[in-house]
Amino acid sequence: MAARFAAAVRWRRDLHRHPQPGWLEFYATGLIAAKLTEWGYHLQLGRDIIDEGKHFLLPNAATLQREYERALEAGVKEEFIAPARGGFTGVVGTLKGSRPGPTVGFRFDIDGNEVTESTHGSHRPAAEGFASRYPGYAHMCGHDAHAAMGLLLALYFAANRDRIRGTVKFFFQPNEENLCGAWAMTEKGLLDDLDYLFGGHVGVVDGRSGTIALDVHSFLALSRFEVTYTGRSTHAGLSPQEGKNALLGACAAVTNLHAVARHGRGPTRINVGTLEAGTTWNVIPERAFFRLETRGINDELNTYMVQKAGRVLEGAAVMYDLILDVKPVATAPGGRNSPELVALGTKVARRLPSVREVIPEAAFNASEDFTVMMKRVQERGGKALFVLFGTPTFGGHHSSSFDIDEEVIMTGSEFLAAVQAEITA
Amino acid sequence: MAARFAAAVRWRRDLHRHPQPGWLEFYATGLIAAKLTEWGYHLQLGRDIIDEGKHFLLPNAATLQREYERALEAGVKEEFIAPARGGFTGVVGTLKGSRPGPTVGFRFDIDGNEVTESTHGSHRPAAEGFASRYPGYAHMCGHDAHAAMGLLLALYFAANRDRIRGTVKFFFQPNEENLCGAWAMTEKGLLDDLDYLFGGHVGVVDGRSGTIALDVHSFLALSRFEVTYTGRSTHAGLSPQEGKNALLGACAAVTNLHAVARHGRGPTRINVGTLEAGTTWNVIPERAFFRLETRGINDELNTYMVQKAGRVLEGAAVMYDLILDVKPVATAPGGRNSPELVALGTKVARRLPSVREVIPEAAFNASEDFTVMMKRVQERGGKALFVLFGTPTFGGHHSSSFDIDEEVIMTGSEFLAAVQAEITA
Amino acid sequence: MAARFAAAVRWRRDLHRHPQPGWLEFYATGLIAAKLTEWGYHLQLGRDIIDEGKHFLLPNAATLQREYERALEAGVKEEFIAPARGGFTGVVGTLKGSRPGPTVGFRFDIDGNEVTESTHGSHRPAAEGFASRYPGYAHMCGHDAHAAMGLLLALYFAANRDRIRGTVKFFFQPNEENLCGAWAMTEKGLLDDLDYLFGGHVGVVDGRSGTIALDVHSFLALSRFEVTYTGRSTHAGLSPQEGKNALLGACAAVTNLHAVARHGRGPTRINVGTLEAGTTWNVIPERAFFRLETRGINDELNTYMVQKAGRVLEGAAVMYDLILDVKPVATAPGGRNSPELVALGTKVARRLPSVREVIPEAAFNASEDFTVMMKRVQERGGKALFVLFGTPTFGGHHSSSFDIDEEVIMTGSEFLAAVQAEITA
Amino acid sequence: MAARFAAAVRWRRDLHRHPQPGWLEFYATGLIAAKLTEWGYHLQLGRDIIDEGKHFLLPNAATLQREYERALEAGVKEEFIAPARGGFTGVVGTLKGSRPGPTVGFRFDIDGNEVTESTHGSHRPAAEGFASRYPGYAHMCGHDAHAAMGLLLALYFAANRDRIRGTVKFFFQPNEENLCGAWAMTEKGLLDDLDYLFGGHVGVVDGRSGTIALDVHSFLALSRFEVTYTGRSTHAGLSPQEGKNALLGACAAVTNLHAVARHGRGPTRINVGTLEAGTTWNVIPERAFFRLETRGINDELNTYMVQKAGRVLEGAAVMYDLILDVKPVATAPGGRNSPELVALGTKVARRLPSVREVIPEAAFNASEDFTVMMKRVQERGGKALFVLFGTPTFGGHHSSSFDIDEEVIMTGSEFLAAVQAEITA
Repeated sequence: MAARFAAAVRWRRDLHRHPQPGWLEFYATGLIAAKLTEWGYHLQLGRDIIDEGKHFLLPNAATLQREYERALEAGVKEEFIAPARGGFTGVVGTLKGSRPGPTVGFRFDIDGNEVTESTHGSHRPAAEGFASRYPGYAHMCGHDAHAAMGLLLALYFAANRDRIRGTVKFFFQPNEENLCGAWAMTEKGLLDDLDYLFGGHVGVVDGRSGTIALDVHSFLALSRFEVTYTGRSTHAGLSPQEGKNALLGACAAVTNLHAVARHGRGPTRINVGTLEAGTTWNVIPERAFFRLETRGINDELNTYMVQKAGRVLEGAAVMYDLILDVKPVATAPGGRNSPELVALGTKVARRLPSVREVIPEAAFNASEDFTVMMKRVQERGGKALFVLFGTPTFGGHHSSSFDIDEEVIMTGSEFLAAVQAEITA
Repeated sequence: MAARFAAAVRWRRDLHRHPQPGWLEFYATGLIAAKLTEWGYHLQLGRDIIDEGKHFLLPNAATLQREYERALEAGVKEEFIAPARGGFTGVVGTLKGSRPGPTVGFRFDIDGNEVTESTHGSHRPAAEGFASRYPGYAHMCGHDAHAAMGLLLALYFAANRDRIRGTVKFFFQPNEENLCGAWAMTEKGLLDDLDYLFGGHVGVVDGRSGTIALDVHSFLALSRFEVTYTGRSTHAGLSPQEGKNALLGACAAVTNLHAVARHGRGPTRINVGTLEAGTTWNVIPERAFFRLETRGINDELNTYMVQKAGRVLEGAAVMYDLILDVKPVATAPGGRNSPELVALGTKVARRLPSVREVIPEAAFNASEDFTVMMKRVQERGGKALFVLFGTPTFGGHHSSSFDIDEEVIMTGSEFLAAVQAEITA
Repeated sequence: MAARFAAAVRWRRDLHRHPQPGWLEFYATGLIAAKLTEWGYHLQLGRDIIDEGKHFLLPNAATLQREYERALEAGVKEEFIAPARGGFTGVVGTLKGSRPGPTVGFRFDIDGNEVTESTHGSHRPAAEGFASRYPGYAHMCGHDAHAAMGLLLALYFAANRDRIRGTVKFFFQPNEENLCGAWAMTEKGLLDDLDYLFGGHVGVVDGRSGTIALDVHSFLALSRFEVTYTGRSTHAGLSPQEGKNALLGACAAVTNLHAVARHGRGPTRINVGTLEAGTTWNVIPERAFFRLETRGINDELNTYMVQKAGRVLEGAAVMYDLILDVKPVATAPGGRNSPELVALGTKVARRLPSVREVIPEAAFNASEDFTVMMKRVQERGGKALFVLFGTPTFGGHHSSSFDIDEEVIMTGSEFLAAVQAEITA
Repeated sequence: MAARFAAAVRWRRDLHRHPQPGWLEFYATGLIAAKLTEWGYHLQLGRDIIDEGKHFLLPNAATLQREYERALEAGVKEEFIAPARGGFTGVVGTLKGSRPGPTVGFRFDIDGNEVTESTHGSHRPAAEGFASRYPGYAHMCGHDAHAAMGLLLALYFAANRDRIRGTVKFFFQPNEENLCGAWAMTEKGLLDDLDYLFGGHVGVVDGRSGTIALDVHSFLALSRFEVTYTGRSTHAGLSPQEGKNALLGACAAVTNLHAVARHGRGPTRINVGTLEAGTTWNVIPERAFFRLETRGINDELNTYMVQKAGRVLEGAAVMYDLILDVKPVATAPGGRNSPELVALGTKVARRLPSVREVIPEAAFNASEDFTVMMKRVQERGGKALFVLFGTPTFGGHHSSSFDIDEEVIMTGSEFLAAVQAEITA
């Protein structure tokens, strides 16, 4: 086990050195696919696991190609990433145990962040030589540790296959940061055979490694849209009356979107994060594009915001005689851990020596696209649990000096193995 | 003639003492109806001359009643104003000459202003004792002179009936100030038998009496609307999500109405002159009401503004899920004097000793609901002319010290009589 | 005691018949002042208890006069209400016990609502003949019961004066509904000698009489402002460039006020409840007036909203070159019951037979200007408690059929007497 | 003369083949500088003629370098364009005649447009092989003809130097399209020694070559600004209260800029032509950038718009607590041809056989940065004239198929030579 943990640390550092953001995780895809294949897992890749109709927020072709080539240069075998070409990253691996039993899923997200990593001597990856090799990209949210935890767990099941009851199914999910990846995997029906689903995140709860939170709540429901208004350009000096001003429409929309009445029964959020419009000084803008995000403490409240926002968007189009295009590109519903699994997990955690503390309840207060999968599993009668694995983080998530205590990889892996054993006991 | 002029001055001063604004001109209606009856005119009154479907901007019932009673107290015979009860003011009087000929219409507006008249010794009505007896109301736009000019002209035709060719038809029109009266009269079809129509205004061109302008242009096309948004009130603290905020809708509308792209081919205007919304601090406003006005240098440009405004109004309703009610309450199209009458009038004016100067052309640069009548007459093949009769005005139109040189009453009357004679010669 | 309770019910019904809203509570003032005088209390009235600098939201002079006269006609002695003339209503009464001890304050609000009371047979005040005699006004928030509860308590102390330790001080406060009265009383320094302060409300917690809640929290901090923009009017057709458009400024303010970023750490609210601007169609509005309200779950969050709102108001003034006047007219800070009094009250409540249930904690989720007084007392080292006294309410607060179970008057009075005894024991 | 005209056509076609937009006119600069040097003109170049403080709207370094290299590749001698490196394009050339007399300036603009030229066979440059060699750039506003006209005129003066009285000074001005070039030249004081200044444009008046308009008016005064709001970014979900939303500020500004009251005394325009803000979905935008343009029929009206716009910009900064940066980057005042030169030019034109028609007056109805120079000359007591030289244009200005009748080059050159002779006669 110590040997396996040392390997897991190596995998994590290897992934840390080769971070690639959403839909570009060719290196991670190749590394994981190679390992799972070696360990006897049945693999699914590429368009078999990513729904093309939900393949949103894709980087441009040049970036896709560059990152694909980077992965090859870094030593990944092309056979494992050829199916991912064009951004269809991620790996699903399945292993049948030797004895009958339920199907238990495990989801680990694998994407990096668009952040340049600290080179400061106090930042361990820099000091110990496993910092990101790709400028502008880095694993600053711990998904490298998630992937390593998944691999360690997968290896455990493979090594103990003869004792395993039921089936284990691993989802190494791309593009969690943009809240796109879970949607694209879920739409392929890949979770529909699960009886149980587990996922988690490192470092959200403070404290030393060994801390764990199981009654995690307050996943913010979230929706993201790309909004485009199209009008008609005209010379602003000579014939303003001929124009249909997409920028004025967008400004009316943006202002009034932020003025939507907030819900009385809990937190909601709305943000227009970017806006681009127009071409030059003396031309009335024909096109305006912006990115809109809503959130709510639960599905009902987020749906309220989406509906109110929809009216505002439509109204601004009517005001300025514009064509409106609203494209939903990311989603995360609210969600709630299955109480049975919270109870079972608590029982398991209390008897594991590596778990030093079980935090009674924790508000996540952010969005996670694990909830897309959780909702699907629960709607079909399964149960799901999202766990917070404590670790010190040095810098905040997404900061350039984020890091973890690698022990959390083992803690998480052990806990999940023990839970699977308990379920199938 | 001198005797008649002295009478006309008395009528003007009598009207000046009893000013009543739009739809309240009971005193003027009674005085004029009595005179025309005495002189043998065929009268039309009340609902026969005011279309109920266009009877907009009516004062409240208490005011209507108060002013009706004031007129009776001031000595008007009830038989002449009973048909006007409820705001159906104005008089149409027709006289057939002894010889055949065309039908020539003359329009004089009779309403006062909501202004309190100056009591200063330098203001002649105050100094000579014919200032307004009704606080808050006064003839500060010269419509008292218009009415007197019309009566003097009507008396002239009656006195010379045996020499008159054709028919003369007088329109003593209420409520010009709100641009409602001409619309209501026109809709009754009262102008549809006219071959010619004349109207005018005193004091718009500077200069001494005897100045006259015939090529008058730049009547601003105008439209006025009462706009109401109805939403749903709710407690702003407890359940903001239940509301449909009519004030937010109105504010979005008002701001974006003023942002409508102005037309490249000439002046346009837009104004929201009033807004009222809501009931108290902690309730989301259920209702918002405002007054909207558009203008353009001609019908096309005003129509452009109305259409753009309509979209904005509708869009704000969509934005905040409101019911929109837009009620057009006043209108004045653009217009242009018939060139034949400009030429004929110029010929006549040049030979009248009382006309000292004919101004070649004059921009009106304001709105006049005479254009509603002008347009109707011209559309049916008739000709129309709006004349500016110069007079010093002492204070500006609508100011509390506006006054005229009463000689303009005779100048105008003589000119119009001479034009009628020329047409029917 | 039963006799006293019967009297308290009569007082409550008397007050119920003569409801008068904020600053108009002449009848209640007269009735209470007469009783307290009779019972030996030292009285303070009029400008001695209402700070003129915080005398906000005063009704107009005609209404003040009418309601003053109504109180006289209803039998109140002028000597008791003459000091209140002009809206300086309310009564402060002090009684020194025979033995030394702390000063304990009791606050009861006495104003009625601007609601027309139900005349339906199912509404007890209507059925039993004590419904409001003043159309448009009614006690639909239970302040009549509060006043009766206060009188019953005052009578108890007077009757037992020889056994009372310390001083009791009663604040019969006007104008709680507009959140003005407590501010005006507090500014006079009247609470500065208190060691303890108690207040409460009937009917906020559901359930039968005898229910009581002591750990009351979530008082929403609230601020109300009257906002006026003054610009310059001009003719909207002729010279729009001369104007400074107060309505456009107000609309920019209103929209952007609602777009203020909500706080991430708890509920906040903002509302513009009314807006009035302008005079007529063709004049650019010179003046716009609106009512603005902010709330927050605590003082910090409300202060955040007030500061953000202030910037928006100022910015709109800069935009349209307007003079801005912001008048704070009502306030209620957040607040929290003193834990010592919650504990003490709980102990007392548990041993009183009339208290059937003590609710562990209750969110008030609204604003109460008692918090102004509470904050003052606590800041000076005193302790304060706001209690919820359960009663069925038949219709909701402020509805036309709101009513109470009068037993709550006695329950409340007994509880407060017992608490005072415990404190001074 | 025919030989010279043939040369002028060659120059024009050479320039047409090598179009470069504002601040990138290296080819034209090199060609013109070489010719003027050859002809004995005193040259000024680079930073001697372009004020660094007004060197606005500079293309990026890569584009500057690319176009510089293109010019060298196309055969321009480096000595003539080295001073222009970095975008300091343009040429000023001075020639003293042999006899004393006034200093007469001639301004010709030389920049191309960002348009891709038509390749259709009906487009003469395409058919005859002198179409643009630079994709995305083309001379679609006739500035190639202006430059050729200037060279032809310069050659004429050089060839006739012994008969020339006074001094002639040529301004081959860069970047007219962005209305930057004249400002940058004028600030260097280069026009301060002129007694007369002439400029013109081909093809604005319809009709055949030989048509000329001298009483040109209605130059729209124009101002352009780059506006930046800087606030503070924050996570839109977790801590919206920490942000200062630059996009909301910009939207408030944009909407209210378009709502500025239009002036009653003539046309005004306002346009926000582009807007860019923010980085991603869940971050409150820290920065917003937009391009603002105002116009007015004269300086007074444009100044009115600039002042009103300034208030709105400032107000939005106050609203959202943003830092505002407003950078004026282009300007063109209104202007009016000196009446003496209109008269003199008319006299001259009438006796030239090549001038077939003198149009009495023509409204320019657009902006031209010649007015910057005109104003400077007139303010210092000199006289200035802007002439419209008629030519058919095939496609509209800035369209991909714009072309001219090359005869206009000679017409213009002859006319300007004749005017110079008349002035100095």
